[in-house]
Amino acid sequence: MSMPSPLLAAVDLGSNSFRLIIGRVEETPAGSQIYQVDALREPVRLAAGLNTDKYLDHPSQQRGWDVLKRFGERLRDFHPDHVRAVATNTLRVAKNASDFLVEAERALGFPIEVIAGREEARLIYAGAAHSVPTCAGNRLVVDIGGGSTEFIIGQDYDPQIMESLYIGCVSHSRQFFPSGNVDEYAMKQAELAARREIQIIAGPYRDAGWSQAIGSSGTARALAELIEANGFNDGGGHGLTRNGLERLKRALIKAENANRAKLAGLKQDRIPVLPGGLSIMLAVFNELEIESMETTDAALRLGVLYDLLGRSHHQDMRAVTVEQFMRRYGVDRAQAERVGNLAIGLCGQIAAEDEDQREEDEALLSWASSLHEMGLSISHSAYHKHSAYIGSNADMPGFSRPDQARLAELLLGHVGKLGKLAAQPRKVGWHLLFCLRLAVLFCRRRTDALPADIEISALDDGFQVQVERAWVEANPLTEYSLQREAAEWEKIGMRYKVVYA
Amino acid sequence: MSMPSPLLAAVDLGSNSFRLIIGRVEETPAGSQIYQVDALREPVRLAAGLNTDKYLDHPSQQRGWDVLKRFGERLRDFHPDHVRAVATNTLRVAKNASDFLVEAERALGFPIEVIAGREEARLIYAGAAHSVPTCAGNRLVVDIGGGSTEFIIGQDYDPQIMESLYIGCVSHSRQFFPSGNVDEYAMKQAELAARREIQIIAGPYRDAGWSQAIGSSGTARALAELIEANGFNDGGGHGLTRNGLERLKRALIKAENANRAKLAGLKQDRIPVLPGGLSIMLAVFNELEIESMETTDAALRLGVLYDLLGRSHHQDMRAVTVEQFMRRYGVDRAQAERVGNLAIGLCGQIAAEDEDQREEDEALLSWASSLHEMGLSISHSAYHKHSAYIGSNADMPGFSRPDQARLAELLLGHVGKLGKLAAQPRKVGWHLLFCLRLAVLFCRRRTDALPADIEISALDDGFQVQVERAWVEANPLTEYSLQREAAEWEKIGMRYKVVYA
Repeated sequence: MSMPSPLLAAVDLGSNSFRLIIGRVEETPAGSQIYQVDALREPVRLAAGLNTDKYLDHPSQQRGWDVLKRFGERLRDFHPDHVRAVATNTLRVAKNASDFLVEAERALGFPIEVIAGREEARLIYAGAAHSVPTCAGNRLVVDIGGGSTEFIIGQDYDPQIMESLYIGCVSHSRQFFPSGNVDEYAMKQAELAARREIQIIAGPYRDAGWSQAIGSSGTARALAELIEANGFNDGGGHGLTRNGLERLKRALIKAENANRAKLAGLKQDRIPVLPGGLSIMLAVFNELEIESMETTDAALRLGVLYDLLGRSHHQDMRAVTVEQFMRRYGVDRAQAERVGNLAIGLCGQIAAEDEDQREEDEALLSWASSLHEMGLSISHSAYHKHSAYIGSNADMPGFSRPDQARLAELLLGHVGKLGKLAAQPRKVGWHLLFCLRLAVLFCRRRTDALPADIEISALDDGFQVQVERAWVEANPLTEYSLQREAAEWEKIGMRYKVVYA
Repeated sequence: MSMPSPLLAAVDLGSNSFRLIIGRVEETPAGSQIYQVDALREPVRLAAGLNTDKYLDHPSQQRGWDVLKRFGERLRDFHPDHVRAVATNTLRVAKNASDFLVEAERALGFPIEVIAGREEARLIYAGAAHSVPTCAGNRLVVDIGGGSTEFIIGQDYDPQIMESLYIGCVSHSRQFFPSGNVDEYAMKQAELAARREIQIIAGPYRDAGWSQAIGSSGTARALAELIEANGFNDGGGHGLTRNGLERLKRALIKAENANRAKLAGLKQDRIPVLPGGLSIMLAVFNELEIESMETTDAALRLGVLYDLLGRSHHQDMRAVTVEQFMRRYGVDRAQAERVGNLAIGLCGQIAAEDEDQREEDEALLSWASSLHEMGLSISHSAYHKHSAYIGSNADMPGFSRPDQARLAELLLGHVGKLGKLAAQPRKVGWHLLFCLRLAVLFCRRRTDALPADIEISALDDGFQVQVERAWVEANPLTEYSLQREAAEWEKIGMRYKVVYA
């Protein structure tokens, strides 16, 4: 990591905001990845400067140029091959776009491409595919921008159906909520207008089907954050759900204006585009019959960076990330493998009936075993907390936020007290914590000298571990640790039966 | 870090507890360091099993053997050259020590050395010298063990005067507080008994003098934690102070028993040795006229490890640690150097009159510049918080806890909002935050293209920055950032004047 690795930059002249991200390429034997090292975001709201006759007014152009001049300073020493600047819908439709662009390119110092909706969709798909977990079936990616919304269905890293519609959160907010006031009628009209557009393309999408829906824009991310912060999802769930969106709509209508809605976590610069963005998202959910959606932002910019890198990945990006993190944090690989094998083997003895659930359990145990000692790179003392801190906060390409939350819980709970985990809704089953903790306990000596047989079973109210008596007698630290482990589980009201056979 | 590096182990059969630590050697071009990778601690309280005729009773021996058997399991695959087990005062004085040791060595699987008081003092000094900052003058290290207390004066890494006295927290607690009850009279007797011993050696120590006092045992660390947790230091200060010790004494006397004292942060297994340990520490402060003391634990064990490593260091261990952390977290060195040079150069313009203060300021700015981007290894988003997290939690050889706290504050405050820092007592002056933030702002492009002249000055209620007008006009991102920086300082009620000349 201390070698200078190439930096790549993507500039995104969106209809709502202009953004710059700079990424560093990291090569691993398992593939290349891009980690963000700098980012700038400016709410230019270009689409709001588009007159009814499709001309950009001067103030909005000036805002754009000012921002691009600042981006240009940051990019001054970049080789042109390492920068790609793309402009989307507003500059696709503005009649004076070419005038704007002459000055804009001078300000930025790099050429700017106005990309077609399908190219935008392709890049968005590439970015989204690199930032959420792979899944077996099709993926639907919906990107609500300031002036257009892209719909893509693809598999793995290949987009298959791509459409771009002229509905966006800035234009929709201006059209249906010009003063920012929200009422039942305006919300209904806005949703219906969006549904009419989506209807036109919905057929082929419904036919293709999908097993995962992803909302990939700032709008999707902001809506999900609002819904989570205000507890609008049933059971405090994560991401976008139909119910959560409905409750957010009711809250806005009740407040009569997004400005007065006093929602937890509402950012000032998101307020003007919130009602429009929400109405489009509701239309997407209702027209495509979606129940829930994961979110990721930065998809277009990330897609541009991966496109610049010019390499595509046909493997699970999470495996590459885990590999990269083991290197970065100097994890003892032999130990990680030892713990992983034992934990997965143990879990097999009490595995779920359901095949999918079993695979998910194994994947989680494998990541957690690989990364449980990351925190040692910070300090031995309370290292499990440091591992969990890294797992919660790190930029982990390929992992969804719920994935990361589950992983972090295993990292935090793999040794030490169980009280904190018992006191809050858990993200992973006790059986995973039980297997991982037991594997760590037996592997403490960092050798392969394990008992020939460790038999475990799930009890009604806990777990049972059975080990050979002779082995335990020869290994008093392990026996002592088993007794303490049992006491720890009993503290949280669970049974933990240790049997010597 | 992913290469397997040698593991070294130290076992410490103390009079109060038995401990095992395992350290990994990390080599850097600037020197070698040891990072702890595993630790076990068991409160055997061997000294409490010593009869009045100096024989160890059977239960205490049995407790010791049981613990050593467990340690032995952990060490089973270690080469004998990589393990050193030392026993201290209780086994120096117990008449049946050799009987105990035969069985003890069998349990552990390695030879056990009963070391002399002076050898103990030498090892303690080596451990303490490797774990707190170097200082210009002499250092006094005081190590209150379970059965003996060591006093060492040294310079850098060389111990010069060493003495060992037969007073310890276990034996003192048994003698003066046999039922655990604490009253004015018993506390006074205990302190006086300890002062009588210390008087004998105090002369040469007072003559040599010291500029830094370090308390190096579990007792010192536990007393400091108690005093901090209960806010007994004046102004919420750090470490051991005479006043803090007095207030702790009053609290114990008032509660009449350490068990009933209801002190924040009091650990169960420390209670039996607390009154004895406190009375000895009071005697040390009063007899040697100490006002405040830094603390570190693990000194003896760490000294054993450094001794096993067989290399001595004659440089500031903090520089080695900073170097190691830059490698570990893949810091962009050119950028760190750029920011450091500018920050220190700026600070020179508004430097303190006091030479010592100036040197301390420069050292802090240099460490903070070297490490401010550590957190990027976790994530770009909120990376300053991740840098501060690492800086607060990492095991940083050579850094005292106040050093680490100051460094962490600079890491947290080098970008972003100032409100949180303004809301609490600060550990570093605003001028350091001002210089570091300004350096980071000007270096964002990661090139050496800086204005020829940045002039700063301190105002009554803030700071002024003056830059050439032409340069700022050509660098609009920097200008914009300066305006936002000014607004950030104004938010916390300080002036921030930007002048273009």
